[in-house]
Amino acid sequence: MRMAEIGRRGETGVDRAAFSPEDRAARRLLFEWAEEHGLETFQDPIGNLFLRYAGRNTDLPCVLTGSHLDSQPTGGRFDGVFGVLAGLEAVATLAHSQVRLQRSIEVVAWSNEEGCRFAPGTMGSQVFAGHRTLAELGEIRDASGTTLSTALAETLAALPEVPVQNFRPKPSAYVEAHIEQGPRLEQMGVPIGVVSGIQGCLWLEYDIRGVAAHAGTTPHDCRQDALEGALGLIDALRKHCLAGSPECRFTVGRLHVEPNTPNTIPGRVTFTVDFRSPDPALFEELSQQLRLMQAPEPLRLEVRKLLHHPPKAFAPALIRMIDEIARDLGYGALNLVSGAFHDAYSLVHICPVGMIFVRCRGGVSHNAQEFALPHDLGAGTQVLTHALVRLAECE
Amino acid sequence: MRMAEIGRRGETGVDRAAFSPEDRAARRLLFEWAEEHGLETFQDPIGNLFLRYAGRNTDLPCVLTGSHLDSQPTGGRFDGVFGVLAGLEAVATLAHSQVRLQRSIEVVAWSNEEGCRFAPGTMGSQVFAGHRTLAELGEIRDASGTTLSTALAETLAALPEVPVQNFRPKPSAYVEAHIEQGPRLEQMGVPIGVVSGIQGCLWLEYDIRGVAAHAGTTPHDCRQDALEGALGLIDALRKHCLAGSPECRFTVGRLHVEPNTPNTIPGRVTFTVDFRSPDPALFEELSQQLRLMQAPEPLRLEVRKLLHHPPKAFAPALIRMIDEIARDLGYGALNLVSGAFHDAYSLVHICPVGMIFVRCRGGVSHNAQEFALPHDLGAGTQVLTHALVRLAECE
Repeated sequence: MRMAEIGRRGETGVDRAAFSPEDRAARRLLFEWAEEHGLETFQDPIGNLFLRYAGRNTDLPCVLTGSHLDSQPTGGRFDGVFGVLAGLEAVATLAHSQVRLQRSIEVVAWSNEEGCRFAPGTMGSQVFAGHRTLAELGEIRDASGTTLSTALAETLAALPEVPVQNFRPKPSAYVEAHIEQGPRLEQMGVPIGVVSGIQGCLWLEYDIRGVAAHAGTTPHDCRQDALEGALGLIDALRKHCLAGSPECRFTVGRLHVEPNTPNTIPGRVTFTVDFRSPDPALFEELSQQLRLMQAPEPLRLEVRKLLHHPPKAFAPALIRMIDEIARDLGYGALNLVSGAFHDAYSLVHICPVGMIFVRCRGGVSHNAQEFALPHDLGAGTQVLTHALVRLAECE
Repeated sequence: MRMAEIGRRGETGVDRAAFSPEDRAARRLLFEWAEEHGLETFQDPIGNLFLRYAGRNTDLPCVLTGSHLDSQPTGGRFDGVFGVLAGLEAVATLAHSQVRLQRSIEVVAWSNEEGCRFAPGTMGSQVFAGHRTLAELGEIRDASGTTLSTALAETLAALPEVPVQNFRPKPSAYVEAHIEQGPRLEQMGVPIGVVSGIQGCLWLEYDIRGVAAHAGTTPHDCRQDALEGALGLIDALRKHCLAGSPECRFTVGRLHVEPNTPNTIPGRVTFTVDFRSPDPALFEELSQQLRLMQAPEPLRLEVRKLLHHPPKAFAPALIRMIDEIARDLGYGALNLVSGAFHDAYSLVHICPVGMIFVRCRGGVSHNAQEFALPHDLGAGTQVLTHALVRLAECE
């Protein structure tokens, strides 16, 4: 709740854009808390902020946990922040108990997960994992024209007490705690979700051209109405996707009409499809089919791919371990696939990855109404702590 | 073609907004042509510009013809202009032949038919016919904040040679020539359309509210997708309207989605319906039904009326007369209903009204591609001239 004061909007909203003054203030507060618990701190060149609880054998790769401090412009108090603070709580507890584990545990606040100010999102974890380089991102600008490299340099300089070191070596494992951002745990009456992976996500843009014409004078059999064509196409696409599996998600979120006046038959419509599926084979098959859909004659259709992230499965051993821990602690746990992206997605190729979800009210997220019960957040933190201890004691 | 140079855009486009410098230049050119043919000229307080060919008995109400000189921002060379110049051509021919008819014939260039700069359209003819008063329109502003009264005063003052007189008395009849702005005459291979009336036009705005939510995390059975609801509703509305009669027209021309991002389920959609029918009973019945449609639960729907113009029929005697003239002159003629509005609509309650349509290429209008063959424009002008002569000789 103290972190939520930084960038607060109204009673319970948060606006904390990546590399903004608010983001810098949040990083400073996290650093101060780390200092209180005697943790080492580092930053890497993309601004990922690490808090280190040293293990007995510092030559071994560390166990990594964390999430992000930046928020959506109309964000809430839990998305991202919970995972960072749950990690801090875990290592603070261990430090306080003077438990010394084999491996070091590092808590990371990833830079720019949301991607709202500087697209794309999950930037810090992608650079960390080697999917992108800092060099290719530096010239990205926000809406006011500020480059990422300028905003990043200011952010690094705003924590002069924390040394900037080269990118950290690969961790032995990564576990991220996060609110669910969906309604399943609440519906099932279960506080903890054991995440088996992140579903695939495809964004396509459909661009349909007809002929703009007078709404009053053009008989229906002479029309080339781009909106009528778009509606039929959306209906067909939706049915096609949802027939695939009940796990598929199909959303048309953005739609533009031209010229968009009441008495002109639309001459052009563009719309996006956001298609998701956790099943790799089905995801690829439907992704192909969606790109090949035709518009009804004589409308002309162009389909552009905006984004294509195949599904990624988490490490089976980690999934089993988290599930076991949750049950041992007496918490109900549900296996589920993450519908949203997370920094965890970036790390799947470099180490075993797991995620712990915590039930959130109404599944609401990216919204001032975002809420999770303290009891559930505590349960998630407890599961995380046990998981980190077990991983840090692994050979 | 000389008139089309004023406000020319590209090769064949025209942008001549009401009361603009271009509109004033067009009015001046019309005035100069009227002077060449020895016609009297007047303006009325809303800026309607009259050219008068005096009859033998100046106590009798005149026969009125005309249309407008203003255009859409992306207009063509024929919409409106043709009707004014056809009227000028008719009276110039009569003046040249020294034919003196019983009644005077007046050619009018109505102010602001398009309504693009100052809404609503057909403003000059509506004020002339007493449907609106100048007092209630004076404070309407264009996009730059200029009031109608300012722009109008400048327009009247730009023709100091033409006296401003009070509104003209009711004419004995009104006939307007215009390009069809639809494809029927071309499809039927006929140059002349005899217009039986103007179809009714209803504009409704539907405002559907659901709940914005994350496209990746929200299962389909938990969604309140306003766009999905809107698409279903549009489909139902369209089927409902088009089942009414093949003469009905149904268009969704404007549609807005909120928040309109690819990965958010739309929380709100607004769209317009433009519904038209020439049948008064069907128009009223369907207008009622369209306003009472429900959105699928649990979406919430509000329906607002933006515009409601019932169908208007022209004078049967005038329709028969124009048809007869066209056939006598050897032109194929087709009876049809106007899909678009015209100044003629404003005059139906004050005198017998008729309209003559001329075939235009592809039915295209409000567009630089607008085109009509000189032969067809000549045919329409000839039919108009004969009609004006007959009407001017009527008791």
